[in-house]
This record gives sequence, C-alpha cells and structure tokens, in this order.
Amino acid sequence: MTKKNNTVTSTQTPLDEQELKQLHAYWCACNYLAAAMIYLQENPLLRQPLAKEHIKKRLLGHWGASPGLSFMYIHMNRLINKYDLNSIFLSGPGHGAPGVLAPVYLEGTYTEVYPDMREDEEGLRRFFKQFSFPGGIGSHCTPETPGSIHEGGELGYSLSHAFGAAFDNPDLIVTVAVGDGEAETGPLATAWHSNKFLHPIRDGAVLPILHLNGYKINNPTLLSRITGQELEDLFSGYGWQPYFVEGDDPMVMHQQMAATMERCVSEIQSIQQQARAGGNASRARWPMIVLRSPKGWTGPKQVGGHKVEGYWRAHQVPLANVHSDEQQLQQLEQWLKSYQPELWFDQQGKLIPELKALAPKGLRRMSANPHANGGLLRRDLLMPDFRDYMIAVTEPAKSSAMNTKPLGCMLRDIMRLNSNNFRVFGPDENTSNKLDAIYEVSKKLWLADYKPEDEQGGELSPDGRVLEMLSEHTLEGWFEGYVLTGRHGFFATYEAFVHVIDSMYNQHAKWLAICEELPWRAPIASINLLITSTVWRQDHNGFTHQDPGFLDLVVNKSPLVTRIYLPPDVNCLLSTADHCLRSHNDINVIVADKQMHVQYLDKDAAIKHCTKGLGIWEWASTDKGVEPDVVMVGCGDIPTKEALAATAMLREYFPDLKIRFINVVDLFRMTPAEEHPHGLSDSDFDSLFTKDKPIVFNFHGYPWLIHRLAYRRANKNLHVRGYIERGNINTPLELAIDNQIDRFSLAIDVIDRVPRLQVIGAHAKQSLRDKQIDCRHYAHEHGVDKPEHNNWVWPF
Amino acid sequence: MTKKNNTVTSTQTPLDEQELKQLHAYWCACNYLAAAMIYLQENPLLRQPLAKEHIKKRLLGHWGASPGLSFMYIHMNRLINKYDLNSIFLSGPGHGAPGVLAPVYLEGTYTEVYPDMREDEEGLRRFFKQFSFPGGIGSHCTPETPGSIHEGGELGYSLSHAFGAAFDNPDLIVTVAVGDGEAETGPLATAWHSNKFLHPIRDGAVLPILHLNGYKINNPTLLSRITGQELEDLFSGYGWQPYFVEGDDPMVMHQQMAATMERCVSEIQSIQQQARAGGNASRARWPMIVLRSPKGWTGPKQVGGHKVEGYWRAHQVPLANVHSDEQQLQQLEQWLKSYQPELWFDQQGKLIPELKALAPKGLRRMSANPHANGGLLRRDLLMPDFRDYMIAVTEPAKSSAMNTKPLGCMLRDIMRLNSNNFRVFGPDENTSNKLDAIYEVSKKLWLADYKPEDEQGGELSPDGRVLEMLSEHTLEGWFEGYVLTGRHGFFATYEAFVHVIDSMYNQHAKWLAICEELPWRAPIASINLLITSTVWRQDHNGFTHQDPGFLDLVVNKSPLVTRIYLPPDVNCLLSTADHCLRSHNDINVIVADKQMHVQYLDKDAAIKHCTKGLGIWEWASTDKGVEPDVVMVGCGDIPTKEALAATAMLREYFPDLKIRFINVVDLFRMTPAEEHPHGLSDSDFDSLFTKDKPIVFNFHGYPWLIHRLAYRRANKNLHVRGYIERGNINTPLELAIDNQIDRFSLAIDVIDRVPRLQVIGAHAKQSLRDKQIDCRHYAHEHGVDKPEHNNWVWPF
Repeated sequence: MTKKNNTVTSTQTPLDEQELKQLHAYWCACNYLAAAMIYLQENPLLRQPLAKEHIKKRLLGHWGASPGLSFMYIHMNRLINKYDLNSIFLSGPGHGAPGVLAPVYLEGTYTEVYPDMREDEEGLRRFFKQFSFPGGIGSHCTPETPGSIHEGGELGYSLSHAFGAAFDNPDLIVTVAVGDGEAETGPLATAWHSNKFLHPIRDGAVLPILHLNGYKINNPTLLSRITGQELEDLFSGYGWQPYFVEGDDPMVMHQQMAATMERCVSEIQSIQQQARAGGNASRARWPMIVLRSPKGWTGPKQVGGHKVEGYWRAHQVPLANVHSDEQQLQQLEQWLKSYQPELWFDQQGKLIPELKALAPKGLRRMSANPHANGGLLRRDLLMPDFRDYMIAVTEPAKSSAMNTKPLGCMLRDIMRLNSNNFRVFGPDENTSNKLDAIYEVSKKLWLADYKPEDEQGGELSPDGRVLEMLSEHTLEGWFEGYVLTGRHGFFATYEAFVHVIDSMYNQHAKWLAICEELPWRAPIASINLLITSTVWRQDHNGFTHQDPGFLDLVVNKSPLVTRIYLPPDVNCLLSTADHCLRSHNDINVIVADKQMHVQYLDKDAAIKHCTKGLGIWEWASTDKGVEPDVVMVGCGDIPTKEALAATAMLREYFPDLKIRFINVVDLFRMTPAEEHPHGLSDSDFDSLFTKDKPIVFNFHGYPWLIHRLAYRRANKNLHVRGYIERGNINTPLELAIDNQIDRFSLAIDVIDRVPRLQVIGAHAKQSLRDKQIDCRHYAHEHGVDKPEHNNWVWPF
Repeated sequence: MTKKNNTVTSTQTPLDEQELKQLHAYWCACNYLAAAMIYLQENPLLRQPLAKEHIKKRLLGHWGASPGLSFMYIHMNRLINKYDLNSIFLSGPGHGAPGVLAPVYLEGTYTEVYPDMREDEEGLRRFFKQFSFPGGIGSHCTPETPGSIHEGGELGYSLSHAFGAAFDNPDLIVTVAVGDGEAETGPLATAWHSNKFLHPIRDGAVLPILHLNGYKINNPTLLSRITGQELEDLFSGYGWQPYFVEGDDPMVMHQQMAATMERCVSEIQSIQQQARAGGNASRARWPMIVLRSPKGWTGPKQVGGHKVEGYWRAHQVPLANVHSDEQQLQQLEQWLKSYQPELWFDQQGKLIPELKALAPKGLRRMSANPHANGGLLRRDLLMPDFRDYMIAVTEPAKSSAMNTKPLGCMLRDIMRLNSNNFRVFGPDENTSNKLDAIYEVSKKLWLADYKPEDEQGGELSPDGRVLEMLSEHTLEGWFEGYVLTGRHGFFATYEAFVHVIDSMYNQHAKWLAICEELPWRAPIASINLLITSTVWRQDHNGFTHQDPGFLDLVVNKSPLVTRIYLPPDVNCLLSTADHCLRSHNDINVIVADKQMHVQYLDKDAAIKHCTKGLGIWEWASTDKGVEPDVVMVGCGDIPTKEALAATAMLREYFPDLKIRFINVVDLFRMTPAEEHPHGLSDSDFDSLFTKDKPIVFNFHGYPWLIHRLAYRRANKNLHVRGYIERGNINTPLELAIDNQIDRFSLAIDVIDRVPRLQVIGAHAKQSLRDKQIDCRHYAHEHGVDKPEHNNWVWPF
C-alpha cells in the first residue's frame, strides 16, 4: 500500500473549450436555481424586472455550501457519462440542499417524481416557492429529495452512510461531500477509518470530497485553518490518498476538478481491477479530494461594506434585507442575472438541449439511481426456519440456556443464505454477546495488517462479512447506509452504550417517518438492534454499565416506525428476531441478555406468545376462570424470573391467593390501539389486566416507562418496579434487591396491595425482608449469590 | 509551528543502574498488586503456599491494560520528583483500574482516604478483596478512586476531559492514557483537535500517551495495525509531535520511556516558557507519546497452549480456571511470585522505604493532587446581581423581548468578574443563540491561522475564553473536565442535538450520584446546559431539528443531581441561571428559546415565581377564591403563550368560566416530594391543581413526560399536550397546530373536558376549528403566520 505524491493537478486541462464552456454554463444554471429558490415566489426566470412582490416574505435557506455542492455534482456527472459510472451522491454539509436540488431538477428527476413541478416556467416557480416554505420542503437533502439517502439535518454521518452504501455494491461509486463543519464532529472524525473495512473486490468505492468551504455559521472551520502539510499528513495518516483542488476562478477550478476527479476515478478502477484480477483483497489507499473553494462562491462579494463571498456571512441568505433596502434588491437582481438564466432556459422555461445533454440519462442520473431508493432493489432475506434453532423446553421454567446463543446460529445461517445482502455489525462484542456461531460462516472483516497469532482464534479474515469496530456511531452509520440502499442487517450492542447512538436513532426514525408519506420511496429493511449485556447483569462492570433508558427515547418517535420487544427466553427471542428480520421500514429494538437464563416456553408456545405479544401464563397462574386478586407481570428476561419466583413464594405463603401471571414481549401492546399499531384495545387490555385489581409489573427498564405507555388505561392500580438507578459492583440478586425488582420485594408489593393480605401478611413480609438481608450478607461474604437463587427454577 | 523529527529515543539511557533497578522494582510491586487484586481474598503477600481458598470465588477484573498504566504512572512519578511537577493522571482505557489503584495504594493515598485499607498485610488483604467484589469497588477508575476525575466506564472522553482539566491551570500537566480501543470512538478521534484550543500561556499542558496495547476484547485495534508512517502522519496531521516507545523488554522500555517522557516534559516547558516570556499565544505543536507494549505485559505468556501476553486473551482474567485446574493454580502462584513481593513489602506488609521514596510526596502525588478532587479548589463564582439584567415588564404579557439576549449580558459580566475560572462553551452557535454580548469581554478562542477578514466581526482572538467547536462531545468533555477540576461553566446548545451527548450526560450523572456518597469528594460546580433553538421555532430547519426528548433522559438519573427548568421569559431565565450558576453537584438543564417572546413577569414576580418553581398567575385566572372549572397550565415559553391565548379566547366565549392559570418553571415540582428534592408535597399539589378538576397542561416537550412525573398525584383528570413528532417546514403557529399545543386546540380541549361546556360549547368549537384551518391557509399562502397571532399579547 504505497503512498503517492499528492498532487494539485492544476497544470492539466482535460476540458476542451467547448466542454469547459458547457460545463460552466450548466453550473451557472445550477447556481441560478440555488439562489433563486431562496428568494423567488414569482417571476422565476426574471422575465420581468425584479420587484419585491416576487420575493418570498420570509427568506430562509442556505446559500453558503450550495455552489460547491453543485460543482461536485456536475463534475461527477461528466465522469458518469464518460465512463458509464454507477454513482450516487451524498451531501454531508448542513443545509446545502439548494446545491443538490438544482442539478436534480435540471436532470428531470424532480419533475418525474413530482409532476406538478414541471420543466417549464410555472414548474420552476412552484419548485422555487416550495423551498423552505410552509408546506414545502426543507433546506437539507430530506427524504423528499430524489437521489438522497442522507439528509444531513444532524451533522457527522455522511461518510459512514457512504460506506454502508458501498458495501456489497461492487459497481457503485458513492460520491460523498463532507462538510468541513461536520468534519469537526466525532462520528465523522472516526469514520475516515472506514477505509480499513472496504473490500476492493466485493465492495464498491467511496469518493469523499472534503469541502473546505472555510466557515461554519459564525466561525472558521478547524480543517481550513491548519497547514497544507497537516491536512496532507492527517488524511495520509487516516490511510487515504488526498488530492487537493484549491482556488476561486471557476475556469481554472473546472479544469482542476475535472483532472482530479478523473484521476480519482481511474485510481479507484485500477485498485479494483488489480484486486479483482488477483482475487486477493487487501487494504487499499483509496483516493479522496480536498476541495477548497470560497463559501458562497459566485455570490455577492460584499454586502453593505461587509465581505460575504468567502466568509461566514455567506452561510444563509446573503442579501437579507431585500424587502426594505432598494439597493439590496438591485444587488440581488444583478447577482441572479449574473448567471444569465435567459441563455440556459428556453421560452417555455426548460433547460436548453445543449445543456440537457450534459446530464446522465435514465437510471444513471444520481437522482434516479435506484440505490438511492434502496427499497426498489431490496430482496427479501432468504430465511432459514427459525423453529430449527429453538430448544426443547419440556416443562416451563425448569431449565436454563444462554438466550443469545441459538440466535447466533440462526444469524450464521442467514449469513450463509444471503451472501451479498446481509451484514452483522457489532462493537467488538459479538463473541462476548455469544453470537460467535456466526464466525463459522463468516469471520470478522480485517483488511489491515495481520500477525502470526491472528491464526489462533482471532476470527479475522479479509473476506469476513461481520463488521466490528469500537465505534457505535460508525457501525450504526454503516448499517443505515446499507439498509437505505436496499440490504439487510443486524446490530448487537451493549445496552448502556446504545445511548451513544441516541441521536442517530432519532434522525433515522424521522427519516423513516417521512418516507412513510412518500409513496415513491419503496420500503427498506428495518434497523434491527439487539440490546444485550443488560443492566441486570453487570457484576463486574458496575454502575456505568447500567442504563436501560434507550427505550424511553425510542417511544418518543413516530409509532409508524418504532418497535420494542423483550423476549424472555431463547424461543421467544428466535421468534422475535425472525419477525424483525422480515419487517420493513421499522426500527426494531430487541432487549435480551446474553447469559444463562431460565427457559419458559416450548416452540409452539413461544410462537403463539410472540404473535400475541403478551399473554397469561396459565401454568404460573392460580386464578383459573375467575377474577384474580392480583396481576403479576414480567417483562424482560430477569424481571420475569424474579416475578415468577415471587409468585412461587406467594403460593407457599397464601395457597388460596388468586394470582394471574402475564408476560409481555411486545412492549407497545401496553399502549392504547389508537396510539400505536401494536397497541392493545382497551377491552382486551381490561380483560387481561382487569379494571381495578392491583397490577404488580416487573419491568426491565426504568419503571415510569410503563406508566407512560399505560396512563390511559382504566386500571389505575398499576404498580411498576424497574431500574431506579441504584447499583455498583453487585451480584445479580443484590442488584435486583437494590432496585426492588427482586422476588422478595415483589412478594411484599403484592401483600401490600391485596387488601385481604394486609393484616395476615405481616409475618410473611417480615420473613421476606429477612431473606433479603440474608441474600445481601451472603453476597458480600462469598462474592456470589446463593446457588438456590442463582439456579432457581419453577418449583411446582 | 515546526515539525520535529519523530524519534524513538531508544539509544538514550537516562536512568543509572540504581534508578533503573528501583523503578523496575516499584513497577513489579504495582504489577503484583494489580494481579493480586483480581485473584486474592486471603494470603495477600503469598506468605503461605497459594491455595484455592485464598482465591475469590468469582474472578472479575481486567489485567490487560493494567501493567502499561502503572508503567506510565510511575514514569510520570519520576519526573514529578525530578522537576517538582504538578500533574494528575487520567486513565482512558476501559477497566484498567488495577494498574492505577496499585500506585495509588503504594503512595499511601488510598489508606489516607480509606483508613481501614491500611498499609499492612491486613490492609492489603482488604484492598484486594474489595476489588470487583460485591459491596466493593469496580474495575474502572470510579469516583471512589483517589486522584481520578475520569472513570472510563464508557470509552471516548479521556482526552477531552484532560483538556478541560488543563484549561486555566497554567502549572498543571495532565497526563492522559488513551486506550487504543477508545481511540476508535468518534469522540476520541475528534478530541485530538483540542490542541488547537490550548493556550500556552494561561493553560497547562496535556501529555497524551496513546497506549497501543494492541487489542480490544476480541479484536486487534485499528491503530495498532496500520503502518508506523501512517501513525506518524495521523498525529502530525492532528498537529501533535508524536514520539514512539515500542517494545517488551522492561529494562529497555524503562530507559526509552524515561528518555521520551523527559523529552516531552522539557518540550512542554520550553513551549510554555517561550510563549510566556514573549506574551504571545499561538498554536503549539505539543508532544505526545505512542506507547506500544504487549497487552497483559509481564503476565502469563501462554495458558493451555494459547498465547496470552500480547494478545486479546490477556484482556480480563488470564488464568480463569484456577479453582478447577491445579496447573493453572500453580501457574498463578508462579506468576504472582515472579514479581517478588517478598522483596518489596516488609514484615508488616508495608512497602519498603527505598521504594516508598520513589513516590512523590503530599499533594504532589497524582492521587492526592487537589485538582483531581476539584471541589477542594472550587471558589464560588463572583456573581453580578442578576436583577441588573432584568427588563421592565410593566404589565404581564403586553411586550416582547429576546429571551436569551439579557442572559448573554449577564454571562459577559460573570466572565469579566471571573477571569480564570469560568468558561462558556458552544458549538458554533453563541451568536445564533443571541448570547453574543459575551464577546464584549471575551472573544472566541482561536489559535489556528488567521485571515485578514477575521478582523471583520469574526469575534476571534488568541486570548478568547469562549470555546466553540462543532463537536458537542468535545465541548461537553472539556466542560466536565473543567468543573471536575474545580471551575465553572455554561454550555448553550441546540435542543435537537443535545442528544449527541446523551451518553455523556448519563455518565456524568452517575459520577455525581456516586460522589454524593463520598464525603471526601468536595462538591464541584454544576453542569449548566442551556437548551435553545427549541422544537417550536424551526421554521427553516424542519423535522430533524425538532426533538425535545433530552428531558426524558434527564429524569432517569438520580434525583440528587438532576434539575430541569423551563423559564417562560427573560426575567425568569435570569433568575434561573443565577440559581444554577451558584449550585453544586447538579446537572441543570434550562430550556429557553432564543427568539422574540412575550414577557410575563416583572423582576420581583419573576424571582418569587422561580423560587416557588411554579405558581398561579392571578392576572390570567378567573377563579378568584373558588374552585376552578379547569386548570390551564403552561410550561415552557411558547406553550405558555399558547395556553394564555387559549385562556383569553375562552374568556370571550364563556365569560363565567372559572379558569386557573398555572405556569411551571421547575419541572420536578410535578413529581412527589418523596421522589425528588424539588417535588411538591401532595397537599400543595392538590391545592394548586385540584383533586379532580380537568387539568389542560401545555408542555414544551413530549407530553407523556408529565404523566411520568405526575402519575402518583390524586388528580387523574390530567390532559397533556406537547410535541407528538409532527412537523416539517412550518410556521410556528402551524407547527403548534400540528401538535395540538396551539391556542385553538387547547380551548377545544377545555370545552371537551368541562362538563357544562360540552353542549353549549359546540358553536365555539366549530369556530375554533375554522380559525385553525384559516391559520394554516394563511401560512401556506404567505409563508408566515398572521401578524395578529405572531404579535399576540394578553388582551385584558
């Protein structure tokens, strides 16, 4: 992997005069559209003298990054035409949409998707007016933008999305504009290392163009203010081959950009050809471009004596006072006319054929490339029968197993059956999470250096399809990019640290919610998140690793896309995973711990239970055919075990107590049917949970989440236990006691809440409290829980 | 800023034979302690043959990073002694605590803080047993660890914490071990750029030691498997001067490390002296070390035929089967004895004086340095009188102002009064957030390159004290490091993107909760987070910028440290900010939008209102002296305005309707007093909110949060409106309507819930619905809301 001379290819002039002229004209047309959509609601081609009434009342939008984005876009167009490339375009800079919407419109895709935005003067007017206008579209590359798989509303994920798109798409070149603002974020800073996971044979390529636009909202960007040597060192150090295109004279810059992009494409092709001819994958030094161009390039140089072009003042609306300042209005007109729209649009308002010819055709247009509407390419996963991985459970709650281990076997076989459209992601933890069976079929991708000891069970391979890196951000970004381009995946991660990607979850959920309203966006595979190493088993990790709060975040997003499952055992986990891997446009969050746990349901019972999402476990209940005294609920693996153990003790103390035992797998069943598609109707809810009997609900997460879901239900006699932020280095039972989700606390809760037990239960309560104290003493003396509790099984 | 030759200083031998021997002996003692604390509960100095009963039943702990951490620690000790340095030590690698706890114990601090962990055999036994043992301490550098300000339970923040500690501590050298696992995370990857914010005159230094330990749990680390040239390029590109120490022979490595660390310290001093002599600050190329040493260094080379030292198998407990495998037990004894504890501990079990002499003394010990117990150094902020920034409000709800602007003035003067222990942090948004008055006193720190246009209002200065970078992770990390070392700060950020630091919030809240239980940890200043650019004002940003869900996360953490305030106007915001900036050990979240808003309370009323945290606004109520028909609640600036406007309309429709209007500033007042120190007693709650009258609660965030806080209250007739995830490019009123927090929806809610209005209100309801439709039409036509709604004031 040699390092080449970094070159500013300024002396090359690959464009002949005609081509240069046309390319520049096309760019002028783009810039005209980008500027005009910020301002105009009438008079779209300036066929009348510009007047205030032509201008939107409220000026919203972002000019700064737009010319540079169009510049990249149309230079890629040139190469798509020249080499028949298959490419998509991701725009990382915040609010650069005008620079992308412009070429998308010019190549006709916008009109194809939104027929009322015709390619004529009236269509242009509508196209302009809707931009950043109530009821219209935003100033990011939102899902409404044809060709976009990356909105960029929150910064930092463009590069990881790009890599996700490139995986297993050997012919695709993902062109990704990285903003120099977003380049300061952590997720972006580590995403440059994604090049160590790009397989030159089976994957496509990512061509990052770092846009040194120079400024954020009010500040210079860090990367635009370090030395050229530092920039070159930094990207060489990240393992890239950087090329620099720098300047502000459009004619010179067109030549430089054309030469540099051509060089990059040719290097990409040569890396791929070499690897593919030899059949040996190793890490390559892929090319990238650093484009240093002025912010607000070609816009007003000065406004009111203040520098605008090449300064942060160009970030949003360069001439903000056109309504009140006659001079600014004139300046706006001059600026817009400087792009000479009259030359590029014909009488009808349509782009002239000479320029139209520059755009790629059909599906080669980046805006119409099906990879950017990945649902079109999605093939359903070939699924093994999940029943084949289920374990024998002859009697409920009499045996134990590792809950995630059989899932590893199922994932292994899914990987086997879907060799080029399924990936498993994890931050260095798939073995720790007991999913390691998967390595029998596909090891961990490793393209960097090898050492002799890697043979010894390192599970590394240059052809592995499991992606592990210690960055949840990068993994989630890859995963999203992968499903957005029509493929499938599975991501297992530590419960406490899934919060690292809270914000990415929010953004993806919002993306999906908007897609649900866009019939032209074909459904994509769901994001499947297995949350494991959960709060209740942190014996050696302690307090920092105890956080079940991701669920509280999940429930905030659109019910159209949010799903939460807490399968209590192996067979329920398999049934749930099968369902999730077949689903579309959802974010499925599955909570299941990786360690040994009691097994409850046999195959048929598990499938039936998971299909219903919740249900009474008759074998654990004593309310046969009558209204119970109390409803005991378990939700989650460990909470279910403790709730059952409490039930068992209560039976001993109070043989005639009528307990109904319910287990909840599908958390959204708790919410009313009007609020979530999985919500249970009120009548079904009442018949299960009763209208007024005490419910003691033992929950995996923070207890108030259950109140949040069920507050509209008739039964207000709901008492929830869950994690209440008490913990340290504890044995499992001690941790349960500290948070009162343990069997003793639950039994006491029942005694306190069933009126007829309140007097006769005093003795039992004291005995339960003594047992709690005894358990803690034992743990502190021996470092482990009493075997009788650890190995507890249903005693009846 | 020149780049030096990177040197592996292997040829230098700064240690004479005696010093080398002693240093190595000290390291052996450390390694003995680190290994022994993982295994032993008895026989701490191996004075009896090792038997199974001496060994903890459950073996938990992490050996892998420990020897390297002790190695760095004691080499820093040497320089502290030699140059009388003032240093603290941050351990980034996960689970490296044994390698830090060992030298902390040996230098006596552990015993001073925990007297029952004496410096004798019994003290050692207790010290060993408590490690990773129920009721004991964890395997991270938890708050219980003297000298720690960084637990490292979640990875990625060591470097930003280190910089926060170094700011405004000109004499301090923060030694920070960065794990090569955590170096893959985004937050860490961008934190290397913090060197562009370190002021060589007024700040101290950060000496990062990147520990190329080679492996994570199960995988090689990326940075350990790229070429040396790439490593050098990467860190040069980040602007550092990297030095490499590589090998596994302890005697050679001691010399290398001693030479390299000495060189680094001397470069740090020379950079500082030069800048301080000249009085001119510019960006420096600070030194850093890359230490490549085997994982589990000096531990078992092989176990059962598998490579352990220098491999991922050394990550946790290298000999895991000592209870069942006699051979492993023997191997353990040999391993432990290889450190020759009998030579380093005297008859009593105390470190021998020759070695004791190697540790720094008193407060120069990194474990006893007061900077690592920052509350000891904390001076209360000198505060201006917040009343001086309050605005005149002659009548409630009759005028408007920008809510955050006066706060900017107050922060400006706090900055003026506290020139070396107060910082303001923001991701490129302080001007956008209207806090720019602060620049009158202190501009934005900028040490990188300048351009001529920076003079033009760029607000940059090499001596600025406002820190802006487009990385919420880095800002929060700096802020935490800054307060953990005894200073104060303020962080203003976009509401939707505060989720970027969800996980950091979780970790800091957990740190603080544990500190509350440690009397020796002096209270530190609170984290003050101003959440602005809120969900309700995203006219041009759209759906991705709408997310008030951070509060749902905040409420999950310990009530001892969580505080949430939603001041509705300028004067309440000032009163709240004043309170927060004076508080300790809390995380204060203040939600306030930056734009023009209606003003409600004059100075005295605001102070009284904020002190109570909530209260009835008599001027907006019509229930004088009697039980109301309905309680209308506003919580947050915009929801309060809409709730008031609804109240005003209801008065017109139903002149005899008895409305009580309540505003809530301190959100935790909603929760019972038993659950949060700010919780309102049930009797006070009932007298304010009534026991059964309908409450229409208009909330800033997701509505269910109010149910979560108030579900135990008697009044179940609670109806909450808030953000329900509906939005796009909307005018403010249109967005309110979409989420039903608008005046019309609220008035309809009241009509629906007050029994006697249900029939007579039909006409009013229809009229309200018509008005909603009309508002939406107007917005879609004009791009703005009707002026009568935008400029609404209280009409009575």
